[in-house]
Amino acid sequence: MNTRSTPENDLIRRIRAVGAGGARLNSALRLGIGDDAALFSPRRGYETVLTCDWFLEGTHFLRDRHPADSVGWKSLARAVSDIAAMGAEPRCFLLSLALPDSHTGRWLNEFLAGLRRAARKFNCPLAGGDTTRRNEILMNVTVVGEIASGRALLRSGARPGDIIYVSGRLGEAEMGLQLIRSKRHFANRNPALRKHLYPEPRIAVGRWLANRRIATSLMDLSDGLSSDLPRLCAASGVGARLHASRIPAVQEPNRPSAKNVDAIDLALNGGDDYELLFTVRPSKTGQIPRAFQGVPLTAIGEITRGQKLTLVQPDGRERPLPSGGWDPFDKSRRTAATPL
Amino acid sequence: MNTRSTPENDLIRRIRAVGAGGARLNSALRLGIGDDAALFSPRRGYETVLTCDWFLEGTHFLRDRHPADSVGWKSLARAVSDIAAMGAEPRCFLLSLALPDSHTGRWLNEFLAGLRRAARKFNCPLAGGDTTRRNEILMNVTVVGEIASGRALLRSGARPGDIIYVSGRLGEAEMGLQLIRSKRHFANRNPALRKHLYPEPRIAVGRWLANRRIATSLMDLSDGLSSDLPRLCAASGVGARLHASRIPAVQEPNRPSAKNVDAIDLALNGGDDYELLFTVRPSKTGQIPRAFQGVPLTAIGEITRGQKLTLVQPDGRERPLPSGGWDPFDKSRRTAATPL
Repeated sequence: MNTRSTPENDLIRRIRAVGAGGARLNSALRLGIGDDAALFSPRRGYETVLTCDWFLEGTHFLRDRHPADSVGWKSLARAVSDIAAMGAEPRCFLLSLALPDSHTGRWLNEFLAGLRRAARKFNCPLAGGDTTRRNEILMNVTVVGEIASGRALLRSGARPGDIIYVSGRLGEAEMGLQLIRSKRHFANRNPALRKHLYPEPRIAVGRWLANRRIATSLMDLSDGLSSDLPRLCAASGVGARLHASRIPAVQEPNRPSAKNVDAIDLALNGGDDYELLFTVRPSKTGQIPRAFQGVPLTAIGEITRGQKLTLVQPDGRERPLPSGGWDPFDKSRRTAATPL
Repeated sequence: MNTRSTPENDLIRRIRAVGAGGARLNSALRLGIGDDAALFSPRRGYETVLTCDWFLEGTHFLRDRHPADSVGWKSLARAVSDIAAMGAEPRCFLLSLALPDSHTGRWLNEFLAGLRRAARKFNCPLAGGDTTRRNEILMNVTVVGEIASGRALLRSGARPGDIIYVSGRLGEAEMGLQLIRSKRHFANRNPALRKHLYPEPRIAVGRWLANRRIATSLMDLSDGLSSDLPRLCAASGVGARLHASRIPAVQEPNRPSAKNVDAIDLALNGGDDYELLFTVRPSKTGQIPRAFQGVPLTAIGEITRGQKLTLVQPDGRERPLPSGGWDPFDKSRRTAATPL
């Protein structure tokens, strides 16, 4: 063979297996890993949706705390969530991977197994990427999606009077992270832990909202409601009023008394939930079921004129929405929302 | 304004300016930075070409040696080169950027200026990305390109008897890196230094080869001829014979005697040239001019049956092609080709 067996070529061969077996055959992907670039045949009448996401040791995960297969799953899931947040479907992804020599064996195999499971689940095969050696584990994932032309749901479409909804339960991923930190996770199968390690982007909910033209705006919750809702409001030029008592927060069976304090804080400021935040005209709220394919959909407030963001507290008082979400460039705000 | 002025939001605003002014208005890019993902309208009858590339401090550039505007230019240029290496044209790009707090001021401004110049030059506007804080400067660039369906030039098309060509002059970028390392670069305007700091991907050459159906295979030279030619041969299932005396190597006016030794080594093993390597049926070599739009095109050997790669040396002896190019996972081979 003249395919010289160099360390880099060998690594690329192992990663390529994710492309071959990682998802149902995607006929749109004409050429995957192994050439200078991948070739993808777009569908007529569709727009291409593009997103990329960092996934970095120390910033987004801990080498010694997070299982390698969770790192693989989550690296793809969080980028796919951005595609779901447009109402689109993922089609393929590119992986840039930097690894220490010490992690090219068992760790890499488990990482690739988690990545392959996610690629199958989201029907999103690996199309290409880049690899290099590095002391730290670094990843960047680019996902390419598609949506029927003109159907994408943007952040900018919310109007005063629209009702604000979220999918799922907020704050669970943050609680899962706290379990990981405290090392208690080895002893239980807490759903919050599962949500933190293996988040499931809400592709079906997003697609349904876009296809039926039900929502006026849509985004995903990655940094926490208190950071992400202001972004949606800014893009739409509106304000918002949230009702703390309506927010679907974490339920801790053993600590019912803590709900009003910790759970709301987790729901507002916890990152990594990858749930959807969307707005609906009041005339269309009748089309929103309590749950879609098992995922709860909950009205938590309304879009207002002006630019204020407020939170109606359980005692009925309305106060400015505190901003405590994840901001990597703000050292003064390392609160519950700081991932690591 | 309810666009809260957080550090991360401010950073995104400054980067967004590259998207707005970075290239001629690209009507295909319907939605750029600021939403969960970018929207791109593919052209009918075209395929989408996808690539991503690391650009990491310490591995690919040195924070204290490489000017920030070169880091910006090169981060885009090297990924665009993968698009040129398919015969395609770039359409837009995504930037993932991790920065220390200390580099969010002047360094970032100069970096963005270099990136903006490259985006204009390659007609490839910024469409989106991701930012985070990090002690080291890390980048990942994804480029989306397009090519008429079925016209992409792959690595796998070379056949025995085809003539092997390269564009430009090989080894200049490696020599430029040596100047950077030796600090002599502040005193001269060596073209090798320019090639190292501001490489120009051969978009026009690649497009011409693909449109005219002149080449049977095509790739770009990023790791060095001795690493990259084996990849093309492996993909095509062929061997190759190179002629050392025909390789367009670096010319050092002050050291003519050194040409046969150092210059050939640089040309074979130097990385970062971003020239094109392609093969042409003997019946079509008459269509290859000595230069295309000022870029020299040089026949350096021929594709052979079997799997051997050989180098005919200036003295006429034929020997196995030594493999000395850049492999980030091979610690035993840190030669001239090791970028840093």
